[in-house]
Amino acid sequence: MSDHQARQVVSSVRTGVLHSWSLTLIPTAREAPNDAEVPSHVLLHRAGFIRQVGAGIYDYLPLALRVINRISTIIRSELDAAGASEMLMPALEPFELFSATKRDESYGDNLFRVKDRKGRVNALAPTHEEVITQLMITSLTSYKQLPLNLYQIQTKFRDEARPRAGLLRCREFLMKDAYSFHINLEGPGGLNDTYDGMYRAYTNIFTRCGLDFSAVEAESGPIGGSASHEFMVNCASGEDTILKCPVSGYAANVEKCEIGARPWNFSGSANETLSKHHTPGMPGIEAVAGMLKVKPPQMLKTIVFSVAGLAGREAKEHSWVLATVRGDHDVNEGKVKIMSGYVVTLADEKAAKAAGFAIGYVSPLTAKAVAGTLLLVDADAASGDVAWATGADEIDYHVTGFHWSRDYGPGLAESSKVIVGDVRSAQEGDVSPRADGARLVTGRGIEVGHIFKLGTKYSNSMGLMVLNQQQKKQSVIMGCYGIGVSRTMAACVEMSHDENGIIWPMALAPYHVLVVLMKPEDARQREVAAGICRDLNAAGVDVMLDDRDERAGVKFKDADLIGIPVRLTIGDKALEQGGVEYKLRRDTGKAEVVPMADVVSKCLGAINGA
Amino acid sequence: MSDHQARQVVSSVRTGVLHSWSLTLIPTAREAPNDAEVPSHVLLHRAGFIRQVGAGIYDYLPLALRVINRISTIIRSELDAAGASEMLMPALEPFELFSATKRDESYGDNLFRVKDRKGRVNALAPTHEEVITQLMITSLTSYKQLPLNLYQIQTKFRDEARPRAGLLRCREFLMKDAYSFHINLEGPGGLNDTYDGMYRAYTNIFTRCGLDFSAVEAESGPIGGSASHEFMVNCASGEDTILKCPVSGYAANVEKCEIGARPWNFSGSANETLSKHHTPGMPGIEAVAGMLKVKPPQMLKTIVFSVAGLAGREAKEHSWVLATVRGDHDVNEGKVKIMSGYVVTLADEKAAKAAGFAIGYVSPLTAKAVAGTLLLVDADAASGDVAWATGADEIDYHVTGFHWSRDYGPGLAESSKVIVGDVRSAQEGDVSPRADGARLVTGRGIEVGHIFKLGTKYSNSMGLMVLNQQQKKQSVIMGCYGIGVSRTMAACVEMSHDENGIIWPMALAPYHVLVVLMKPEDARQREVAAGICRDLNAAGVDVMLDDRDERAGVKFKDADLIGIPVRLTIGDKALEQGGVEYKLRRDTGKAEVVPMADVVSKCLGAINGA
Repeated sequence: MSDHQARQVVSSVRTGVLHSWSLTLIPTAREAPNDAEVPSHVLLHRAGFIRQVGAGIYDYLPLALRVINRISTIIRSELDAAGASEMLMPALEPFELFSATKRDESYGDNLFRVKDRKGRVNALAPTHEEVITQLMITSLTSYKQLPLNLYQIQTKFRDEARPRAGLLRCREFLMKDAYSFHINLEGPGGLNDTYDGMYRAYTNIFTRCGLDFSAVEAESGPIGGSASHEFMVNCASGEDTILKCPVSGYAANVEKCEIGARPWNFSGSANETLSKHHTPGMPGIEAVAGMLKVKPPQMLKTIVFSVAGLAGREAKEHSWVLATVRGDHDVNEGKVKIMSGYVVTLADEKAAKAAGFAIGYVSPLTAKAVAGTLLLVDADAASGDVAWATGADEIDYHVTGFHWSRDYGPGLAESSKVIVGDVRSAQEGDVSPRADGARLVTGRGIEVGHIFKLGTKYSNSMGLMVLNQQQKKQSVIMGCYGIGVSRTMAACVEMSHDENGIIWPMALAPYHVLVVLMKPEDARQREVAAGICRDLNAAGVDVMLDDRDERAGVKFKDADLIGIPVRLTIGDKALEQGGVEYKLRRDTGKAEVVPMADVVSKCLGAINGA
Repeated sequence: MSDHQARQVVSSVRTGVLHSWSLTLIPTAREAPNDAEVPSHVLLHRAGFIRQVGAGIYDYLPLALRVINRISTIIRSELDAAGASEMLMPALEPFELFSATKRDESYGDNLFRVKDRKGRVNALAPTHEEVITQLMITSLTSYKQLPLNLYQIQTKFRDEARPRAGLLRCREFLMKDAYSFHINLEGPGGLNDTYDGMYRAYTNIFTRCGLDFSAVEAESGPIGGSASHEFMVNCASGEDTILKCPVSGYAANVEKCEIGARPWNFSGSANETLSKHHTPGMPGIEAVAGMLKVKPPQMLKTIVFSVAGLAGREAKEHSWVLATVRGDHDVNEGKVKIMSGYVVTLADEKAAKAAGFAIGYVSPLTAKAVAGTLLLVDADAASGDVAWATGADEIDYHVTGFHWSRDYGPGLAESSKVIVGDVRSAQEGDVSPRADGARLVTGRGIEVGHIFKLGTKYSNSMGLMVLNQQQKKQSVIMGCYGIGVSRTMAACVEMSHDENGIIWPMALAPYHVLVVLMKPEDARQREVAAGICRDLNAAGVDVMLDDRDERAGVKFKDADLIGIPVRLTIGDKALEQGGVEYKLRRDTGKAEVVPMADVVSKCLGAINGA
């Protein structure tokens, strides 16, 4: 067929197709499945958005797909603007790829395995680090081809032990995953540059989706530093706990959250005598405190780590790291690493005892007694005015009346041996690290995005190298960036619903406007409804017509359930007044009658937030 | 975040992102993989559109995904216009679903099986008849909810024994599959109505894609009649043979193709004597003809079928059906069924012999000898003027000098016993069934679409019933409609390429215009290129800038290879003349210099086919 003929056909295609309830599949239901506990699972099922096919496997019915398309469109526009390119990788991947990175082990049973007719095993990809690294090995030769940032929106598979909560924990789900490749960490085109760009893109994406979310500092990656962020939809039913500064907006995982600067001072008058107590077989701080007749906040807890490698330092000057916190606090291993400059592991009990640590009864004093030991003290534990209870460095014994200045003595001044700072996990009420005087509050969230500095983990294990400017082979530096697309839809429902159903934010709503036709058999009503749909379509509004032969009550209940932001009702009463009924889903009041001539502008106003 | 803030972010998003070669992944290659034989496999690899991950499993790199998105967008707009709704079903499906329809057997090893951590088996869906039928069982109750037409664009899995030819025969591929549901076959909203609408939609889709294609009548489905059409891209390298009428445009599979009316006449003078010949152990028509000293067109070939059921008739009046064709023709079983009005199967040799048929030596005369036999005669075999050679109805014997009028006799007039018509497979040169005087020609094609009347096959086996208008349970009537999306991309390359690379039709091209920057290090050239890209973007043109630091020869070779329809070259020579070089990929001539002010309109002209 000639180009000319082709164009004629193109121009004959109908534009502005009328979407009507009767021509699509929206199987609303009064009941939710028995195992549906969280609101998004209940409501997405009841509103006819999803149906279960198997454990953690769902059909996305037409309304759900429209929401997913909204999310995907927003993702694409922001990632394209950030310089990323879209591609599509397969779900099946040769199992050998996973062996190279040992992720077959780390994923374990979560990895679906498929044996083909020739007996070869393929994995159903849970993410695509291996596949894209392999692709890059065959595609990249020179640093000149970098940086690159590639993404896909694709189905992922994880054989979860306990699929649950509808779309929140599935075995087959939709994810956007992006992978970036760099020759440098710093500077233009470096990993940090792209990472920051992706952070901004994610912020734009979730903002445009109309979600109430927090960008949360998460456990740092293998490169160290602030190398990972989670994006959490704020929502009381979320399974993750986060800490937030209400003034600065800073937010972080409990594991990661920094604590603001706290005053500390080792000096003070030693007004209590140091006395030793027999405390045999005490199972924890509470029991010891009870025996010693002190409160946990008056105790020092000291954990022994052994040094496994460098994490910022130039050389290994120590073999052991002690971390001392108040008895009611928890030592944070990530912070131990950052403060000490070492990669640390919890000390092996036998080796530590052999070195002179009375494990379970260690006091900060062993930092002086055992050579090559670095002492980290949390600011809240570095008070010279308190008479502390602590271990006696002797199995089954504690001491009371410990004073830093008197009992540790002049060694405190040697900064190479003792560092005071933030070495414990944060709690609600701690001072904010980002705003003077502000206090951290806890919140709950659903993780919908995660960005991560991978470094050279995959390029090293699989051999992705390029020639650098000096014509030498160098491992490529990588980042990866995920968004749970189907999860974002569910998180949105968790965040925004009431007892009658879903309340979609305008940006993610499957349709902007639902036109409810009271009497589909009435020619005049039909005509008015069709005219309004046409006019709204022409104005770029996505509209669906409820043309079902059902009672008004059923239609209104269903309208609330599926949660389209604007409802227009075409009925005799309003028509007699020369208008139609207009109601916003999020408003609880009564519908208002809007004159026919104002309907489109009224809807556009709602859509544009006027 | 408030709606208002959200909108501010929206409006801050950059529009018209500049796509540049250096920011995407186009790993062009001089060599194709060793196993690449067909042009689309070779060129899609060499042009950096695809990379193999495993046998029949591919990465779609950014350029390929853009083509796939073009195809998908066209599909969506046409199917939406035809009243279909998009949804998305999962790849994993419980294996039990396949057992119900016995497709686990019919697919056999082509079905990928996945055992999960709990030992349950899932299939990777090759298509979704079972899943959607199951969904409808839980969603439909009344005829009032019908008709419905639902589609998805989704990844399919088939464990092909011999994946080959790149994207033409894969194990993981992209398909659009649609399923329609009806209470009636005829009338508005019936299967035939929707089927015809899908036929038109498919015609629009492939036309808009810029493909040279044929809609081909294919083997009919279980409902009978003309119930299946294949859409074939016309292409010499295609693996399917089709017959076409060059006048009417009629096209069909060899198996299905009708033949136009041919004159026939049993009467004629019997000018040869009937004589019997001993022809023992002759392996075929050629050998027998040689022995009898006749040509195959002078022989009659008679095949015996037994009647298995009704296919249009009211009652079973016959037990046997004979089909007689000329010795150089082939009996067509589908046509036997249509002509006879029976479901037939090739007769069991033992049973047929017992009934009196000398299998291998049957003549039309047995229609008189064996009671309950219907005789079908192909028009080309119904000539009274020819002295035919035929079987002697006796093992190891043939006769020559058979004349219909003399030897069959008066029984020929009994139309209930003898029917003359179209009972053989068509060949090139046969008369067209749709245009007087025209002759059929053969062509080759690649199947990219298939529409099919399923009838109640799935609803019966799985139990999909609704209440009809009489409040009685009735099986739902179904249709299904597929398009190979990734295959369409490959078929397009098969159809449109030359020795230098791909030549994309405008509608499917990953970009409309490629701007080649000769000296990326030259500020003036860069500025001109950026300005042109901006202007083209603003005019709605998809443009990519080749900003690589490569020699001109490499860039031009790559431009031809990836096949963008319009190439603009920014170089000093043309700039001195106040313009840029303009060249269409499909033209073999030299580039012309277009004045700067005319560049956008020139490109728009090419895009709109002016």
